[in-house]
Amino acid sequence: MFEARIYVTLKESVLDPQGQAVLGSLHHMGHKNVQDVRIGKYIEVKLNSANEAEARQEIESYCNGLLVNQVIETYRFDLLQGAAK
Amino acid sequence: MFEARIYVTLKESVLDPQGQAVLGSLHHMGHKNVQDVRIGKYIEVKLNSANEAEARQEIESYCNGLLVNQVIETYRFDLLQGAAK
Repeated sequence: MFEARIYVTLKESVLDPQGQAVLGSLHHMGHKNVQDVRIGKYIEVKLNSANEAEARQEIESYCNGLLVNQVIETYRFDLLQGAAK
Repeated sequence: MFEARIYVTLKESVLDPQGQAVLGSLHHMGHKNVQDVRIGKYIEVKLNSANEAEARQEIESYCNGLLVNQVIETYRFDLLQGAAK
């Protein structure tokens, strides 16, 4: 069993209205040290793959096929052997 | 400058309908190896803090005050010195 931790974020060139809203709220709450906020998706996937190489290939096909909007998003992932607790 | 990478996830006991929907779609696309999918928020925050301890404290106050719904969500974060590229 493998566990992938996938981090999907907007490309740098894409405006992040959600992040800007949170930034404004934090400033409004008095947190003046905050410089920037960007919000994305964090996805944990458990999968049964024969080996690490196959698991990596599968995760990439999930991301490219369903989880990531390639036009505006980018992703990276960590792969852990065994389902981390 | 510090950069915090915050991972907000649903508590284990909370049903994740979004994750279940993605799991179903992946199976429908023929990806039979997938066992479980859980979806959360990934938040990158850049902040000017005097030192690491102060930065940690600030991030915790952002999470507890705004970014995390303590009833159903839990969080962890990594703290990087300098804004990572």
